[in-house]
Formats: sequence, structure tokens, C-alpha cells
Amino acid sequence: MRIEGEGPLVDTVRAEAASAGLAPAEADADVAITVAAGAASAPESFTLAREGGRAIATAADAAAALYAWFEIVRLGARVFEAAPARTYAPQHALRMLDHWDNIDVHPVMGQVERGYAGGSLFFHDGELRDDLSRVAQYARALAAIGVNRVAINNVNVHAREARLLTDDLAGVARIADVFRPWGIRLHVSVSFASPRTLGGLDTADPLDPGVQQWWGAAADRVWAAIPDFGGFVVKADSEGQPGPFAYGRDHADGANLLARAVAPHGGLVHWRAFVYNHTQDWRDRKTDRARAAYDHFAPLDGRFDDNVVVQVKFGPMDFQVREPVSPVLFAMPRTRLALELQVTQEYTGHQRHAVYLAPQWREILDFRPYGDEGPTLAQTVNGGIAAVSNVGDDEFWTGHPLAQANLYAYGRLAWDATLDPATILDEWIALTFGDDETVRRGIRSILDDSWETYEMHTSPLGVGFMVTPGSHYGPSVDGYEYSPWGTYHFADRDGIGVDRTVATGTGYAGQYPSPWREVYESPETVPDELLLFFHHVPYTHRLRSGKTVVQHIYDTHFAGVERVEAKARAWQALEGLVPPAVFARGRERFAEQVRSAHEWRDQVNTYFLRKSGIPDEAGREIY
Amino acid sequence: MRIEGEGPLVDTVRAEAASAGLAPAEADADVAITVAAGAASAPESFTLAREGGRAIATAADAAAALYAWFEIVRLGARVFEAAPARTYAPQHALRMLDHWDNIDVHPVMGQVERGYAGGSLFFHDGELRDDLSRVAQYARALAAIGVNRVAINNVNVHAREARLLTDDLAGVARIADVFRPWGIRLHVSVSFASPRTLGGLDTADPLDPGVQQWWGAAADRVWAAIPDFGGFVVKADSEGQPGPFAYGRDHADGANLLARAVAPHGGLVHWRAFVYNHTQDWRDRKTDRARAAYDHFAPLDGRFDDNVVVQVKFGPMDFQVREPVSPVLFAMPRTRLALELQVTQEYTGHQRHAVYLAPQWREILDFRPYGDEGPTLAQTVNGGIAAVSNVGDDEFWTGHPLAQANLYAYGRLAWDATLDPATILDEWIALTFGDDETVRRGIRSILDDSWETYEMHTSPLGVGFMVTPGSHYGPSVDGYEYSPWGTYHFADRDGIGVDRTVATGTGYAGQYPSPWREVYESPETVPDELLLFFHHVPYTHRLRSGKTVVQHIYDTHFAGVERVEAKARAWQALEGLVPPAVFARGRERFAEQVRSAHEWRDQVNTYFLRKSGIPDEAGREIY
Repeated sequence: MRIEGEGPLVDTVRAEAASAGLAPAEADADVAITVAAGAASAPESFTLAREGGRAIATAADAAAALYAWFEIVRLGARVFEAAPARTYAPQHALRMLDHWDNIDVHPVMGQVERGYAGGSLFFHDGELRDDLSRVAQYARALAAIGVNRVAINNVNVHAREARLLTDDLAGVARIADVFRPWGIRLHVSVSFASPRTLGGLDTADPLDPGVQQWWGAAADRVWAAIPDFGGFVVKADSEGQPGPFAYGRDHADGANLLARAVAPHGGLVHWRAFVYNHTQDWRDRKTDRARAAYDHFAPLDGRFDDNVVVQVKFGPMDFQVREPVSPVLFAMPRTRLALELQVTQEYTGHQRHAVYLAPQWREILDFRPYGDEGPTLAQTVNGGIAAVSNVGDDEFWTGHPLAQANLYAYGRLAWDATLDPATILDEWIALTFGDDETVRRGIRSILDDSWETYEMHTSPLGVGFMVTPGSHYGPSVDGYEYSPWGTYHFADRDGIGVDRTVATGTGYAGQYPSPWREVYESPETVPDELLLFFHHVPYTHRLRSGKTVVQHIYDTHFAGVERVEAKARAWQALEGLVPPAVFARGRERFAEQVRSAHEWRDQVNTYFLRKSGIPDEAGREIY
Repeated sequence: MRIEGEGPLVDTVRAEAASAGLAPAEADADVAITVAAGAASAPESFTLAREGGRAIATAADAAAALYAWFEIVRLGARVFEAAPARTYAPQHALRMLDHWDNIDVHPVMGQVERGYAGGSLFFHDGELRDDLSRVAQYARALAAIGVNRVAINNVNVHAREARLLTDDLAGVARIADVFRPWGIRLHVSVSFASPRTLGGLDTADPLDPGVQQWWGAAADRVWAAIPDFGGFVVKADSEGQPGPFAYGRDHADGANLLARAVAPHGGLVHWRAFVYNHTQDWRDRKTDRARAAYDHFAPLDGRFDDNVVVQVKFGPMDFQVREPVSPVLFAMPRTRLALELQVTQEYTGHQRHAVYLAPQWREILDFRPYGDEGPTLAQTVNGGIAAVSNVGDDEFWTGHPLAQANLYAYGRLAWDATLDPATILDEWIALTFGDDETVRRGIRSILDDSWETYEMHTSPLGVGFMVTPGSHYGPSVDGYEYSPWGTYHFADRDGIGVDRTVATGTGYAGQYPSPWREVYESPETVPDELLLFFHHVPYTHRLRSGKTVVQHIYDTHFAGVERVEAKARAWQALEGLVPPAVFARGRERFAEQVRSAHEWRDQVNTYFLRKSGIPDEAGREIY
């Protein structure tokens, strides 16, 4: 194999090729990767020409060489099949994974907040790990799927994690060293209150010169230690985290404070838009958490510095199995916006359930905010894609071995949002389990429709939540109904759903551009799957499917459980075809998935039977 | 003052008198206490003669001398008023307080399980305290109300607490030394699994000779260190604690194992009857947690050794604000039974709410299991009274300063169940705050009807629970409805309640002797306040009060909150009349009580309006 180019990333490619048993060759090699820095192509992009039994990749830069290498690995023997030359270029320059890892084990949230895969790869026992060998493996895996940014600590920054900026800087630099050969730049979540808590100032006011100076000095220290450091991630004025509101400033003031500190170093500030009142009074039906991010951020469009990326969760609530796409994502044309997804399965079964999320992400990325003729969200988002990682120090990385497919698919879709989830899944299966067609079909039958299945047996028709408070695992239909979190379904004996129309509700539907504001405004035109997100309707309301709401609830819950049972059987059929340890872990998880799906079905169906009094048309057992 | 008698308890009386400024006198003293060991009167009893400006107490034993002293203190100046000679004798020989204190702070339950008054008096930082000065004050307070047994650790015995029996024995002996001068004997909660966990045996089977030997040796060690040690408290086969079921043995086998180990030393075993399936399937409406203790224990009547006391919670569920009296308490005539009450306010407001429980306890003690002509429960219970303590290392001992009244009243009622709760309260107010009539009236207006008030704004008509899972504070109407804990209300759009009749329900009503089995069996005769405990009825069912169930719910919840608001005002009116620190603590608690009562009212009313669809007749605001 011939590899032409210089620098550490190209050295990485050379080492990869060597460990794959490919001898270096000067000319006439079957496979070649050449960095042609002068080529007028986009950063990280490469062209792969395949003819005459040879594969020649021309890479725009060293990172592109690395990505070309992994594309060649993905193709395997097929790389030698003739095909038209093709250019591979990432759709988004920023393809990020956010870790919600704590250094100290949090008394409630544990070591990894919303982590379902063991401890942290980076931290252990209150300190940064000495042994980073698994981080190195992780970095390699991320490079293979094109992720180029990693934030290593939880956006909820506690006292211990705040010290990453100070005492632990040498340790952070060590982690950056491990990521660097794989083209990945490191980011750190910081606390907006740091000038007070770390710096001993009596304020964190973004307009205070002392505060500005403190952040400038902090950034100088960080970049001195890590010259290619990526930047800061901030959750401010959100769920109890400190922020600019305490000083009468807004989020632009807050974000620009940090942006100006990091700008001289080429750094970025990822500023999360997940801002809402988490101490809402459930009695107050006028306040709508869904509106909050738009109400806070849309008016600030144009006020953020160029190196601020406002990071927006895909939906207006919180990573539910079904939500509309957040209107903030197309309300700020003069702002760099990142789409935030969640690979970790906080609301989708905690990696105990096998749920493949790529179909959901693809649906989000394909959403056309201005209607059928307009661009997709993937095309309009200009600040990249970020997602919460699902990886921990678990033997299988992700708890459920099949949850690795989500990590894989995330990277692939962040690179190219037009990839087909089923094709991505086939890639992952082949790379993970080899070419056994039985295995491929079995895993496909488990995962292809698993997101839809999870939706079927959990909260219906976009209404969301109904989860156990705190853990967010398992059903509790009224669990959040009288809470301060702003997540209500308003079920009574007659009907259910949240009226978010402009005409009679909270007005949230009006935050969308046409045609969606009109589509969502009417129960006649809203997609069935979002009906209860936008409307409060009687249980006897007929969906566009022809079923009543309550019968839809019963039917989907019974059918969902049947599907889960079939998936468990499909896994069982793979015994002997996948490694025994993987099989055993999966079997244990499927047993729990079956149990949990039954619990969901029965609680939800019983709840609505008790409340509506309307029996199941099919006469099935509801407790 | 003249004090005649010998021994450490009499010395305690002498020291008390001296520190009260009473000079010793030989004859013709105004006040005299004489231990007349030969007197043919019951242990701990004394006769007080008051004539000619003199008060002469004749005590059956040294403990009685101590109790006589505290009665004289209670009477104060009135002791010199002439009155017929009166004999004071405790109704129950065993008057016990159980502490649920952990040594290690439990990750969920904290240092004191269900403790709302700070840390433990006995343990700190994973060890027994060196400084026991507050234990000495506590012992004196308990002696003043006649408590004579204290179990110092949680019935949920974790690994650390198990070592009280071994490594910590010297420390336990130190605590016993502090209680001894106050006539109080020490008990310890033990784990049934100790032969395995502490002794290294491979079984804890009660019929295994090695296990019997281990417990015998353990008891020998304990009594060698503490010759007047009281005995062991055991929670076995209950909520995950180990017990005899694991070996196919029953509770009599288990209790007798320990009883035979402690019998040579005159020790007791308090064996709790709180046994039920805490992993119940909510779908299964035939299983009834209320039945469990009776089903487990009643068949064992006659099988327990004489030094076993089966300790029975007052109701069949778990210290709810309203439950029927447990039928176990009159189902075992050949067994020593103790009544277990809860002074700590687990389900009655966590000592943030001012709730005086003596009226509830008095109602329980006055319950006549065989009808109007028969004896009261206080008369039939033959194994004494026990209660979970509400005391911690809080500045005011009990969190809410007014919660001290519960501790006081518990001791007084355990001594004499015919005492009037209002009179007890007056005693406590006078001893605590002095003779200010405004203070007395204010506190009486707060506490007299406070139990009823708490019942009004929480779960209605005996249905119980509806609390936040885990903490048991604050409302969550469906919080336990789909849980494995066996605590359901079965509310649907038509009605609510648990059918526990013999005819159509779980049969629990049949566990009572006549006339109660008939009274409870019919919704026409069951007391209103227990209606939903025994029957599932429509919301439109008319109570004997004439109101419908749902209107009763609305009315009591609105009225309950008004009462709480009045109580908060009554406390406010005491500013300047009680010590400032006490006032400030109380004010903070009343603010929370008002907030919490509103939350209860609104969640419960909204829940039932949504479910029943029946509007409030008075048209008040329900959210």
C-alpha cells in the first residue's frame, strides 16, 4: 500500500495499514492514499477512484487520509471492484460527541449522567485515569465513523469537574494527546460560575472586566497546555446551572463572554439552548416548556459572536421517543446552530432495550422546515451536529452490545445525512459480526423497526414522558403530571393531550414557519404521531388512521409487546452465531426488555381503561 | 426532701432533687419518696399521698422512686394541694422506643431511616459516638415519661450495624451505662443472617445446631458485657431482610432460635410481624398486603416461646394517617404481643408538619376488638408497647419543636392509655414553655385537631398512601398505584377503594372477630373514615355524613388547607412568647406546612376532578 503525505494523522494511517498487514509500496500499489494539499477540495474530503483492481484515494488533508483509510476498510474486498470515482465530503465540519461523565460519582446521577454502560472512560475514583488505553481504542472507533470533536465531561459541572480547567489541565492534555492522532479535538464543559468558584471573584457577570479577564487568562492557560484544544461547552441558566440571568444579562452576553476569551486561540463555545423553567407550577397551564428555548433564543439571533455555536436539542422537550423538530433550529438564520441528538438511551430504554435510533435521526435530519420544496434540516443546520455519547467502560462499550449500532450510525449520519439507516446497519453488522447472512437478517429484524416498536409500547402519539421520575426508565403515567418539570399530558376522563395551538392553546405551533404552523395547528392535518403533542382531544377522536385515540393506544401497546417478544426470539436464534459473551449479555437484556415492555403495556392500558372507561374492541385482557 | 432507699436509681433521684435545690431532710420533710420493697404492689408502681401540705410517695422499687420523682416534678406546686392518695402503676411493663439509626449513612435512607431530626444520638461518621452527653439528656427525658426500653439501631440491619454484636460490644456497653441510671434497658436490632455474615457459618437455619450454638455464644458475650441487657429486635423475612423462610422454617422457628439463646440471661426477643410480599404484581388484585401479617402469624399462635414478643404495627399496612387496627393484635391469645406505633412522622409530614399523634394513638388503644362490652386494645395487649422514635441530634431534638409533644405523649400513653391527649398536651406545654395561658391556647389550637387536619388534606377515607414513592413526603396520587408494594387505591373514572370484603373482595374483613367483621363488611356500617379501606365505591356513593365521596374529598381538602393556614397564623401569634430560636424554627416549618398542604389539596382535587368529571358543588377552583 502506498501512503503519501506527512504529519501525525498520516502516520496513523501508516500504522493502521501496517497492523492490517499491508506492506508499504512505492508505486503501482493496489491501494494508495495521497494527501494532495493543494487540491481544491473541502477540508476532510477525499476522492476514491476504483478501476483496474486498484483503489486510489486523493485526500484534501491528513484527516481526509484517515477517513479515506476507514472508508477503504469499510469497503473491504469490494474496494477492488470497479466503480466511478466518488468524492466523500462531510456534510458538517463539526461532528461532536458530548460525554456527560462526572469525575466524582454523583449521588443521584452516578459516574456518567444518563450513562448505561458502566463508568467513565476518562475518570475513575475522583481522578483522571492514568491508563487511557481504552480511550485510545475509543478514539480510533470514533475516527472510523468521522467524529472529530469530543467533550469529555458532563454539562452539569459540579465542583470537582470545574477543576478540569485548573488543577487537572495536565491530565486533560494527556487525554487530548490520545485523541489527537485520530483527528479528534477535545472540548471541556465549564461552569459559568467559574470566576467565582475557581477564581475567587465575587461575580461572574459577563460584562464585568475582571470576569472577562479571568476567562481570558483561563483560556490562555488551556491553549498553552493544549494548542489544538477545541473549546468550551456550556449549560447555563438551565436546570439549576449558573448563568448570565443572575446578573440581568442574556444568553448572548454570556456566550460572547466566553467566545471572546477563546477567539484568539481559534476556540469555539458550544452554548446549549436547553433553557426552561424547571420549577414550573403544574397548576399553570399557560406556561409551556416547549416554547421556552425559542422564546429565550430566537430574539437573540444575530447577537452571538461567530465562534459561538448555539446547540439545540432536536425537539422542544427532551429527547423523547417522539417530538416535533425544535423550531429554534430554523428561527436563527444569523446564528451558528448545532443540532443536538442523544445517542445514550435516556428515554429510549437505557440500553436495556435494543432500540436503533438512526431512523429517528434520519427523520429529524430530513425534516423540511419550509415545506416540501425547501431544504432539509441537515442542509440548513450550519453549526454541525452534536450528540450525547452512549459509551462507558463496559466490556461491550455500550451496555447492550446492539447499542453500538447507535454510536456507529450517529457518526455516519453526522458525516452524511443522506445515508440509509438500514445500509448503515448492514455496515455495522458486517464490521462487527462478519458476513453471516443469518446474523445480518436476525439483527436487522431486531433493529430495523425497533424505534417504532419502542414508541408503540410507551407514551402514545407524541405526548411524551410517562416515565418514572428521576431514572426515566419504565412507565409512570402520572409520574411527571404534578411535577415542576413542565412535562404534562393533561389526561382526564374525557381526553388527553396538550393544546399548543395558537387559537386556543399555548401558541407553540406558531413558532414554526409555514407550512408547519398551519399543519400543526389543526387536529385534521397534524400527523397522527404528533397529535397529542399539539392537541387535547377526546379519547374517541378518530386518527387519520381511522382508529380512535384510545383504541390506538390499546392496539399499539399490545402489538408493541408482540414485536418485542419476536425480537427476543430473534436474538435467541443467534446463539452460536455471535460470540458467547455477546450472546449472553444480549439474552439478559432481551429478558428485561420483554419484562419492561409488558409493564409499559399494562400500566398504560390500565391507566387509560380506568380513565376512559372505554373497553378494548378486541376484548384483550387489560388489568 | 427525704429519699429512702438504696441503689443507683435511688441515687439518681437524690441527684435530681439536689440539682433542683431541694436539701436532703431526715424527717418531717415536705416531700418524701420511700422505696418499700416489701410492699405488695406491682413493679414500677408508687402511691402518692398528698395531705397537710406534704407529699409522700411510697415506691414499690427503685424505678418506681424515679417515676414518683418525675410525677412530683410534673405536679409542681400542685403537689402540696391536698388530694386523695393515688396509686400510679404502668399499664404495660414494656414501654419501648425503637431507633431506626444506622451507623453508616445509608445511601438512600440516610443516617436515621425515616428520621427527620438530624443525625443519630448514638452513631456518627460510621462509629459509635465518644461523647454521649446528649444520650444522657435523652435518657433522662425518657425516664420522665416512663419509657424503660430502648433499641438503638435500625431494624434494617446492614453490614456495619451487624457488628454491634461483636466489635462494638464495648461501645454498646458504654451506651447501656448511660441509660442504666434512668431505669432504661438497652436492646439491639440484629440480623437473622448473623451466623453467616458474622460467624462464617454456611447457614443461618434455625434448626441447625451450629447456628443455635452461635447465637447462644453471641448472647453469652453480650450479657457478659451488659448484664442487664434487654434483648434483640428482629425484622425477618420482611422487605428484603433475611429470615427463616430461606430454610423452609417459619417465624416461630426463627424467633424461638433467638429466644432460647437469650433466655438463660432473662433476655427478650422482639420479633416484628411486618411481613408481606413487597414484590407484588399490581395486576394481581387477589393478593392483599393487608392480609399478610395475619396470614403469616395467626396460625403460629401458641408456638412462640414465652420470652418472644411479637411486635405488631398498629394497622395492617404501614403507619398510615388512617388504618383499621391490625387484626393480628387479637388473633394470637397464646402469644405475647406488643403494639407498635410510629412517633417519627414518616407518613404524617416528616416533622415539617405539626401533627400531634396522641389522638390517633388513643383511638387505637381504645379500640374494642370484641365490641362495646369487651376490653380495649390497651387492655388486651400483653407484650407492651413499642414505637419508632422521632429523636435525632437536632438542636430541638425532633426537627419541629412541636414534634416533641409526640415523644412526650407516647411515653405517657404507654404508661397509662386512659390519659386524655389534651391533658397530656397541657402537661407538655407547661413543662416546656411554662404557664403562659396564651402560649397554651395557641399550641393547643395548633395541635388538638392536627391529626384530623392532616388526614383531611391528604389521602381520603382510609385509602392510604398517595405519597411520593421513596420519601413518603408530599402527594403523588398514583405514586404507588403500579408498584410492587401492594398499596393500591384502584381509582378509575367511576370510583375508588379496595374491596376487602369476604363476599366479593380479598376477605381481609373476615380476619376480624365479630362485631367488626360484620361492621367492616358492609359499606352501610363501615365507619366513613375507613370506607375506602374496605370498599370500592362510586364517587357518587353517599357517606353516612350525607356527602358524596367526591364532594367529601373536595370539601375536606379545601377545609384542611384553611385549617393549616389558621395554624400557621396561630404560631405567628406566639412570636415573643416562646424562645426566639424555637419560634424561628417553627415559622420555617409552618411555611412549608402551608405550601405542602396546598400541594396536597390541589393534586388530590385535580386528580379526582379529572377522573370523575364531577365538579365541586361549591364551585371552588380546582386546577
